[in-house]
Amino acid sequence: MDPFLKAAIDEARLGLAEGGIPIGSVLVIENEIVGRGHNRRVQNGSVVLHAEMDCLENAGRLPAASYQRATLYSTLSPCDMCSGAALLYGIPRVVVGENQTFQGPESYVRERGVEVTIADDQECIDLMREFIANCPELWNEDIGE
Amino acid sequence: MDPFLKAAIDEARLGLAEGGIPIGSVLVIENEIVGRGHNRRVQNGSVVLHAEMDCLENAGRLPAASYQRATLYSTLSPCDMCSGAALLYGIPRVVVGENQTFQGPESYVRERGVEVTIADDQECIDLMREFIANCPELWNEDIGE
Repeated sequence: MDPFLKAAIDEARLGLAEGGIPIGSVLVIENEIVGRGHNRRVQNGSVVLHAEMDCLENAGRLPAASYQRATLYSTLSPCDMCSGAALLYGIPRVVVGENQTFQGPESYVRERGVEVTIADDQECIDLMREFIANCPELWNEDIGE
Repeated sequence: MDPFLKAAIDEARLGLAEGGIPIGSVLVIENEIVGRGHNRRVQNGSVVLHAEMDCLENAGRLPAASYQRATLYSTLSPCDMCSGAALLYGIPRVVVGENQTFQGPESYVRERGVEVTIADDQECIDLMREFIANCPELWNEDIGE
């Protein structure tokens, strides 16, 4: 498996162990992980720290040129907010663990010039299927439903 | 002036007084401000706490039905990330102080069903013009350029 997707899954599992929503993300520049994060809705009471946002926040203030060489990994298809964050910073590549349990605005993100790759990873699918079955209200809250 | 846009401008001025980027935001539900925020790039070293995001974070975890009755005010046209946050939570109305110094994806947000109103407020324009002239590098960093 892609070691960076594996690192994002490790983040998702860390979040699950904390009692949180199991979505993880890493930001990669030139084969190096420069930021890691996972969904913090439960842990921090946060409505903005989805996994990708937490990852970007943990990567810190980077020059525009760094984002423009980066790849954002997420275990789950990025929602409107997280997709928008990738667009804001001009991140050219997004690698998605799976988009079967939730699908963000992938077509729009592609139209805006971002390369979006769907790994269709069974471990990512299983993580979300189990979580959604166990905690449907928390999941709906996280996607504004 | 719309008292809620005035409250967003007060937030922008608070941010400026802290040495930050002068963009402010409030979230309004049934004529009541339920969250206030301003850009925290400088103050918190944050890459995700644009004014609108800080405002949503400060409003806390709300039921989906609350967002769906809300209006998000911002002194400046929301960027891709902040527009995406409004879309994620199904906020149906966005009131923008100005879109002359920066314009986010307003057409796309409207296509997605959000009512976007541009106040074209001179105080908002002056705040950003002066800031961008004084701190162009910080401003460019904030919009990923």
